[in-house]
Amino acid sequence: MGITTSSQSPKLLFRQLFETESSTYTYLLADVSHPEKPALLVDPVDKTVDRDLSLVKDLGLKLIYAINTHVHADHVTGTGLIKTKSPGVKSIISKASNAKADLFVEAGDKIRFGDLFLEVRATPGHTVGCVTYVTGDGPNQAHPRMAFTGDALLIRGCGRTDFQGGSSEQLYKSVHSQIFTLPKDTLLYPAHDYKGFTVTTVEEEMLYNPRLAKDEETFKNIMKNLNLQYPKMIDVAVPANMNQAIEIRWEADIAGICTIVQIASANRTPICLPLQVVLVACPKPILFWPQVVSKQESDRPGLVAVRTARARAGSMFPLNNL
Amino acid sequence: MGITTSSQSPKLLFRQLFETESSTYTYLLADVSHPEKPALLVDPVDKTVDRDLSLVKDLGLKLIYAINTHVHADHVTGTGLIKTKSPGVKSIISKASNAKADLFVEAGDKIRFGDLFLEVRATPGHTVGCVTYVTGDGPNQAHPRMAFTGDALLIRGCGRTDFQGGSSEQLYKSVHSQIFTLPKDTLLYPAHDYKGFTVTTVEEEMLYNPRLAKDEETFKNIMKNLNLQYPKMIDVAVPANMNQAIEIRWEADIAGICTIVQIASANRTPICLPLQVVLVACPKPILFWPQVVSKQESDRPGLVAVRTARARAGSMFPLNNL
Repeated sequence: MGITTSSQSPKLLFRQLFETESSTYTYLLADVSHPEKPALLVDPVDKTVDRDLSLVKDLGLKLIYAINTHVHADHVTGTGLIKTKSPGVKSIISKASNAKADLFVEAGDKIRFGDLFLEVRATPGHTVGCVTYVTGDGPNQAHPRMAFTGDALLIRGCGRTDFQGGSSEQLYKSVHSQIFTLPKDTLLYPAHDYKGFTVTTVEEEMLYNPRLAKDEETFKNIMKNLNLQYPKMIDVAVPANMNQAIEIRWEADIAGICTIVQIASANRTPICLPLQVVLVACPKPILFWPQVVSKQESDRPGLVAVRTARARAGSMFPLNNL
Repeated sequence: MGITTSSQSPKLLFRQLFETESSTYTYLLADVSHPEKPALLVDPVDKTVDRDLSLVKDLGLKLIYAINTHVHADHVTGTGLIKTKSPGVKSIISKASNAKADLFVEAGDKIRFGDLFLEVRATPGHTVGCVTYVTGDGPNQAHPRMAFTGDALLIRGCGRTDFQGGSSEQLYKSVHSQIFTLPKDTLLYPAHDYKGFTVTTVEEEMLYNPRLAKDEETFKNIMKNLNLQYPKMIDVAVPANMNQAIEIRWEADIAGICTIVQIASANRTPICLPLQVVLVACPKPILFWPQVVSKQESDRPGLVAVRTARARAGSMFPLNNL
């Protein structure tokens, strides 16, 4: 293969970032030739928001967008938390996802940051709202092009198609019509990797993807017979991500009793009952109903902050008045 | 900062690869414009050798060198295993490391692969034999330049200086004279990252490295007061890496009894007693003396293969005749 494996534009700053627990990649892109150095984050994770915002600051960038490729089932998006820490940032997700965000995109839309942009391609199949973001095609844009494929295409793999409106038939069509039609040297950056790979190319996946390089019938059979476990984070992550994610800060004592010191929803609507929440940085993700001890209205409209609550890890608690 | 964050040459193929357990980065570089597509791996890890060699094959490359930046204390190098699986490959390490390898390099040497090369810079301080490999400066070489810093410089950090002949004074001088003198946009790729960063630049570390951006006295005080734990892998990794690493294949039953099905040393000298070994892919790294049940001379000179041996995980066993 006559390929190189890095992309360059005189304008583009690009960083790939990794969250170990969910094996998620977050991508930072910025137009550093523009006076404001506008930047965006693709698929930020709640647990690494501080790292990401610190890097944005060190590099002198102005974060304008926090973008998701889809409603993730395996981790809580960082967009809600980013918006509380960096209020000018707008969240973006596909209209087809039915999730909440500041801006919604559809196939063909362009997300502009300075003189650069990401083109939106609809790649449903893992979820109904999955999109792939592709760097622009033009003199100042990145060359080779770069595509952020979410879970539609993973390096030598792909996202599962057995929940969240998934469809193996649709995923096959999405990848073959929207990703494999890009130039062969296009660099593909997935939302996850579990083997330590960081990047691949259209050409490589067309040749070596053990699922998607096959014909459609074989692909559908492979996907039907994966026998995967129910995702451990799905009941937590999906409701949270549909609402741009909820932050729970907690402290645990040695007996496993958690004292929740803050719950904050970045929704435009107040937190409703029943509420499914995830303990940020909890040793293992758990579902519970927190018992609210005290609450305090936030100074930001639509944001409810619970200052203290108690919950026993792994148990279900009645949720008192919120 | 007016920086971009990817490097490009019409000739260079570059891949960054990650090993989760020891948080080690391995780098694959190749000259894809050369008919033979000669390639090298920097800091391969024993556990990910199959992944790396599979990628080399998929990309149609000819692996010629497996290079270490230093004698690692936290993981077992993949060079020994690579040489058994891909016999034409030559291992490289610095002469100052006193470790075993096929080729030894010193400051100023060039490691050539096709029309590209890595320049060797001596950066002792984490260990006495640490070197940094820097891509060449020239029309066909990567631009910006790329430096593989090993543990001399980590992203917003550096390797410890309290064992293996480490010296904080020497490390400070190494980084400031050999790395911070490179062009400011030089991309720095470390041997490890523990926070999910993948790359940094000379300019960024000169400004924001919380240790190395300080003056020398402050740096030495920081390093003196780190109070780090003794590295859990050092008693296994250092002896193994000094000898290019040993491969142990094993199978475990549910009671934790390991049946070792192969021990192979890629040394030019036979395995000597006592031998410290690590179980490849063992749930947790352990030290033990295997009880050899049968052995078989390998068909390769200097290579001793033990076909079966038994050891109880976590225990010390007397090593019988080898």
